[in-house]
Amino acid sequence: MSRQYPDEISLLKKIAQAAGPQAEKELRILARGIGDDAALFKPKPGHEMILTCDWFLEGTHFLRDMHPPDAVGWKCLARAVSDVAAIGGMPRCFLLSLALPKSHTGPWLDLFLRGLRRASRKLQCVLAGGDTTRRQEILINVTVAGEVCSGHAVLRSGARAGDVLYVSGRLGEAELGLQLLRQYRRIVSEKNPLIRKHLYPEPRVALGEWLAKKGLATAMMDLSDGLSSDLPRLCAASGVGARLEAVKIPVARTSNRSPKNRAATLRLALHGGDDYELLFTVPGKRAKLLPRSFQGLLL
Amino acid sequence: MSRQYPDEISLLKKIAQAAGPQAEKELRILARGIGDDAALFKPKPGHEMILTCDWFLEGTHFLRDMHPPDAVGWKCLARAVSDVAAIGGMPRCFLLSLALPKSHTGPWLDLFLRGLRRASRKLQCVLAGGDTTRRQEILINVTVAGEVCSGHAVLRSGARAGDVLYVSGRLGEAELGLQLLRQYRRIVSEKNPLIRKHLYPEPRVALGEWLAKKGLATAMMDLSDGLSSDLPRLCAASGVGARLEAVKIPVARTSNRSPKNRAATLRLALHGGDDYELLFTVPGKRAKLLPRSFQGLLL
Repeated sequence: MSRQYPDEISLLKKIAQAAGPQAEKELRILARGIGDDAALFKPKPGHEMILTCDWFLEGTHFLRDMHPPDAVGWKCLARAVSDVAAIGGMPRCFLLSLALPKSHTGPWLDLFLRGLRRASRKLQCVLAGGDTTRRQEILINVTVAGEVCSGHAVLRSGARAGDVLYVSGRLGEAELGLQLLRQYRRIVSEKNPLIRKHLYPEPRVALGEWLAKKGLATAMMDLSDGLSSDLPRLCAASGVGARLEAVKIPVARTSNRSPKNRAATLRLALHGGDDYELLFTVPGKRAKLLPRSFQGLLL
Repeated sequence: MSRQYPDEISLLKKIAQAAGPQAEKELRILARGIGDDAALFKPKPGHEMILTCDWFLEGTHFLRDMHPPDAVGWKCLARAVSDVAAIGGMPRCFLLSLALPKSHTGPWLDLFLRGLRRASRKLQCVLAGGDTTRRQEILINVTVAGEVCSGHAVLRSGARAGDVLYVSGRLGEAELGLQLLRQYRRIVSEKNPLIRKHLYPEPRVALGEWLAKKGLATAMMDLSDGLSSDLPRLCAASGVGARLEAVKIPVARTSNRSPKNRAATLRLALHGGDDYELLFTVPGKRAKLLPRSFQGLLL
């Protein structure tokens, strides 16, 4: 029933090689690598560990014939890392659970691993282990282990009446990118910044860490399902309500400035998923300490 | 594309409640629980963390209409914990990634969670978080975080020429249990010890920890795919070969003692999966320090 496929070993080797020599060096720091029963990990003194996992499933989270394999590789890691950023932590290593059809263990896997490797380097989060199996559909689950200075984690539950709500970046861009991708299915332009935001989201690790260190944010989470779904979760966890002013919601910039288009971009900003921006609260009296932008990112 | 289902929150609540008040108390030790972006975890001083993850997929690892839901709940955690036992560590907490069809969010989920909770208590490994989504098939991925005293982890790669090979328990029992389960599909007797071993495997945590602490085992792994598949992996990692004596392989005990039956049980012991016993090596000179049994478990 639970037999490993004979070629699982070679699949693991391929994955380990794709992690690259830089990762191999870092894996030695982790004391253990791929192909053993488990990975070993030693957090820095004075730090707590963060653990998070995320499904990334064909048909639910991506489509085999629409999403480039390297974007699937990038995004499966990026979205899990976003959960670490969301509490103010730094990613350290990840486990990859991968189920693939035989037909996808060649070029598709190579491109997938290329995207994964790029994300791994960019986000400084090394591959530490995982599990592989054969399956008709492409199933991915990523676990990320991160670190945060003890006591500095920013929870969803810390918002208080009088706090001011902030988001990073512009909301609804990824959803707009998805619409464009669907429209131009056969002539995908990965250079389009909106399509790029859907395919290659960049978790806001540096901002999350900065807010946690400065103790500015009282509550924080990442926006994966859209403001209208995620904000109520933060409110419920904190036992508070929230009031949004439509004109202050940073929507996607488009050349069409008609009222109808403004309403459309507002809808996207409220209900669009996959932005992976940070939603956080700052006490009213401390709001002036927050800059207008952070490393080029609108706040 | 990646929208959470509106009822995900209630699903999470159900899972959190099923974890029970005892787990809730322990979750406070973990500083964070279910329903946030990630879980926080603080390892004991002088310990390294162990991270491992395991697929448990309908059709590949279990069958919806053959395996009782509480056995699915027990086993998905037990087999991931077995990977922690396999390097001499103690499990601490786990993340549950669960994808379910709507039809299975009622009684099936309740029974699944009952089995998971029993395993969680027995193995002292508390639910710390996870991810849920809707899917036609039942997909499970479990990540376990454990601890091991720094420097005490037993790797696959430590075996040397002259070491003696050991296994815990009897091999092939779980495969024999699976055969019985297939045979008596409609009148499952969960009291049959072979069927129980297939449905509710008990990872050898105490033995693994004892071997690691005593420094007796030079290499170790758990037997999930069968001795004939797993032993070559240990040998490859250690750069050694191995010689097995047929008469010394502890096979399943059956009432039929004919040579034909002995050959059948030997085949099961070599190729049967899902035993989750430990395979380990001890230097020839130290072999006499190993007892014949450990807490009632044959060595």
